[in-house]
Amino acid sequence: MSTPAAGDPTADSAQQRLARAKEASRSIARLTSGEKGAALESIARAIESNVERIVTANGLDIEHGRENAIGDALIDRLRLDEKRVTALASAVRDVAALPDPIGQVLGGHRMPNGIALEQVRVPFGVVGAIYEARPNVTVDIAALALRAGNAVVLRGGSAARMSNTVLVELMREALEAVGVDREAIQTVDDFGRDGAKALMHGRGFVDVLVPRGSASLIETVVTESTVPVIETGAGVVHIVLDESAPLEWARDIVVNAKVQRPSVCNAVETVLVLRQAAPLLVPVVASALQSEGVAVHGDDVVAGLVSGVIPATEEDWATEYLSLDISMKVVDTLDDALAHIRKYSTGHTESIITTDSRNIERFLAEVDSAVVMANASTRFTDGGEFGFGAEVGISTQKLHTRGPMGVSELTSTKWLARGTGQTRG
Amino acid sequence: MSTPAAGDPTADSAQQRLARAKEASRSIARLTSGEKGAALESIARAIESNVERIVTANGLDIEHGRENAIGDALIDRLRLDEKRVTALASAVRDVAALPDPIGQVLGGHRMPNGIALEQVRVPFGVVGAIYEARPNVTVDIAALALRAGNAVVLRGGSAARMSNTVLVELMREALEAVGVDREAIQTVDDFGRDGAKALMHGRGFVDVLVPRGSASLIETVVTESTVPVIETGAGVVHIVLDESAPLEWARDIVVNAKVQRPSVCNAVETVLVLRQAAPLLVPVVASALQSEGVAVHGDDVVAGLVSGVIPATEEDWATEYLSLDISMKVVDTLDDALAHIRKYSTGHTESIITTDSRNIERFLAEVDSAVVMANASTRFTDGGEFGFGAEVGISTQKLHTRGPMGVSELTSTKWLARGTGQTRG
Repeated sequence: MSTPAAGDPTADSAQQRLARAKEASRSIARLTSGEKGAALESIARAIESNVERIVTANGLDIEHGRENAIGDALIDRLRLDEKRVTALASAVRDVAALPDPIGQVLGGHRMPNGIALEQVRVPFGVVGAIYEARPNVTVDIAALALRAGNAVVLRGGSAARMSNTVLVELMREALEAVGVDREAIQTVDDFGRDGAKALMHGRGFVDVLVPRGSASLIETVVTESTVPVIETGAGVVHIVLDESAPLEWARDIVVNAKVQRPSVCNAVETVLVLRQAAPLLVPVVASALQSEGVAVHGDDVVAGLVSGVIPATEEDWATEYLSLDISMKVVDTLDDALAHIRKYSTGHTESIITTDSRNIERFLAEVDSAVVMANASTRFTDGGEFGFGAEVGISTQKLHTRGPMGVSELTSTKWLARGTGQTRG
Repeated sequence: MSTPAAGDPTADSAQQRLARAKEASRSIARLTSGEKGAALESIARAIESNVERIVTANGLDIEHGRENAIGDALIDRLRLDEKRVTALASAVRDVAALPDPIGQVLGGHRMPNGIALEQVRVPFGVVGAIYEARPNVTVDIAALALRAGNAVVLRGGSAARMSNTVLVELMREALEAVGVDREAIQTVDDFGRDGAKALMHGRGFVDVLVPRGSASLIETVVTESTVPVIETGAGVVHIVLDESAPLEWARDIVVNAKVQRPSVCNAVETVLVLRQAAPLLVPVVASALQSEGVAVHGDDVVAGLVSGVIPATEEDWATEYLSLDISMKVVDTLDDALAHIRKYSTGHTESIITTDSRNIERFLAEVDSAVVMANASTRFTDGGEFGFGAEVGISTQKLHTRGPMGVSELTSTKWLARGTGQTRG
């Protein structure tokens, strides 16, 4: 990898910004835990002192969004009011309070020939992120990347352009204020598609790329990138209700998993009900959903048990609605439920509601998803709920990390070997 | 992901074989440790009982290789004599003796609301491998994949086609002999380029793909794949000699790192000598290399200190020779050595020979490679030497795993959550 001159004021391309991030990553990797903490505190303070500026910029994004009729769910994801900005600053402090993963010795031993071998945790170097509407991701990911000793290159959604510009500027100033290289936080938003392309093809500069957003965004990034990617988020999430499911658990968990925040990836999209349980459970659960404003897309059996059901098509089973819609299907057996999940799940989260311990154990063992639950709302698949502090995303791939990702998932390792002249025989 | 019918005798395409591997991976994932051990023992026995058949097939490959003048280094990598076949069987037994990583509980806690959260180790599912000449990789990777509860799809080099065909057939029969689904081991060798393409684009079927071989093979796989890849192996490996390097360590380590097995990725390619040390070290180290038949490609300073040096070009510094060639350069300072390594290293292994503890600590901290050594031969970067049993490859990427990969690097994790009706507030 050749290293172009960093900070050359005459050159400014997405490539140059990646090179600057790479260059900055070397000094960031060597910051002490205290220095990284101070940098994060400086960022938290900069956000708190600029609530008005952030909310004003965000207002422009929202206005622009309304003009483009982007829909209420997206407007909700986009919005930064004073309360959310304050929450953003406190999320940064939560990250600052997390233990520093860098330098941790993960293992090691003395080889028979006397060489001392040690595996230590090190930063990735440069973390790239490509994401959509939510501007809080800008701060969350930058904070987590920094905590783990990384530089970060951000590519946010064009809908949040004004908000992200202000947030990145504030964070870079906040680094400089405490003597940390501001080049450790970069945005390539202003290069549009070329910015995203530079990230996806930034071999030698981008050590890992995290896409966050719609299934199509993630698909594009996974397919096009030549740098390592952590696939996140897309969630066609299932809840299975069996014959022994307590009616209240079934109703409350399904409603909570759909209604509490329908626009996020851990919201449930499909409910599978075992045939024997259908007459009892379907009317109660479906009506509870409908009374919360949820449109139920059901198969024939569901439609026969409750009124106002929209006939479900093959497409429904594969759809991540991210809205007040849900699909509901009656299946003959747990085997059929598991087969349906194998076919349509995106490997994010599935939950079974049952008191039958055999079904619990089978479900937990056989469902091949990042998080598999029994008797709990799928909304709990979340870095905050899992106790990781702010969250980088939820990995739905099996490589590197799976499920909610916290700060230590933004690190790598290296092996150190200390010898005294050993050669291999 | 839709699951085409497995084992359909009328259809046979690379895609079909991936689907069969995926289908088989479900039963493999549920094998007990004892059952997996029995399957591996069955494979080891099948190899031992068929030494002649394997060596004969390999003889055809070697004959074919000689006709195509593929060169001695490649012939060496290709060769399976009786001793190597026996070593192959015993490597399988070593893998069988490794602790089973599956089911290991890696962590967990009870959430404040009472949900019990647990992170457990699970198989990847289907491991793909694309590799070149060495047919022992066929058995090594299949054994490691199975130990970790995975199915495997292999794509070996065309040079080893006859050897690989026999090895795969023997392994599949060996599985069947102990009641394990033979479809868990697949080859796509007979589909040529299409086999490799199917693996690289096998989203939903291939959970991780490991390329092993030349830099260009790895580059192709990394660039073209839409499935997660673990980048392995390419090694432009450096050794730095400073002013305090003991002459014998410098000479013995450099000679060992180049000569003991020049055709492998952990062999040294470039020696950087600090200027002050050059008059003493360069003549001794370079002559020792030359007397072992190594061609020394050196800069002007090196050429002025020892005879028979081939002038090094810019291209030499970036070359992984994999042969009895080495490049040698004199640098002013340790900073210059580190900058040279940043520019040309492939992030595999670098070693410094020095008794100056400051230089040791700086080198270990600042070199950003999978394995960073002081006073040891780079040939020690090896799964066997690190105590992992047979090796899947040496990861030179930072995602998932870095350095030699053993059986637990062929696993993923999942989270299990057991609740009692909890919903999110």
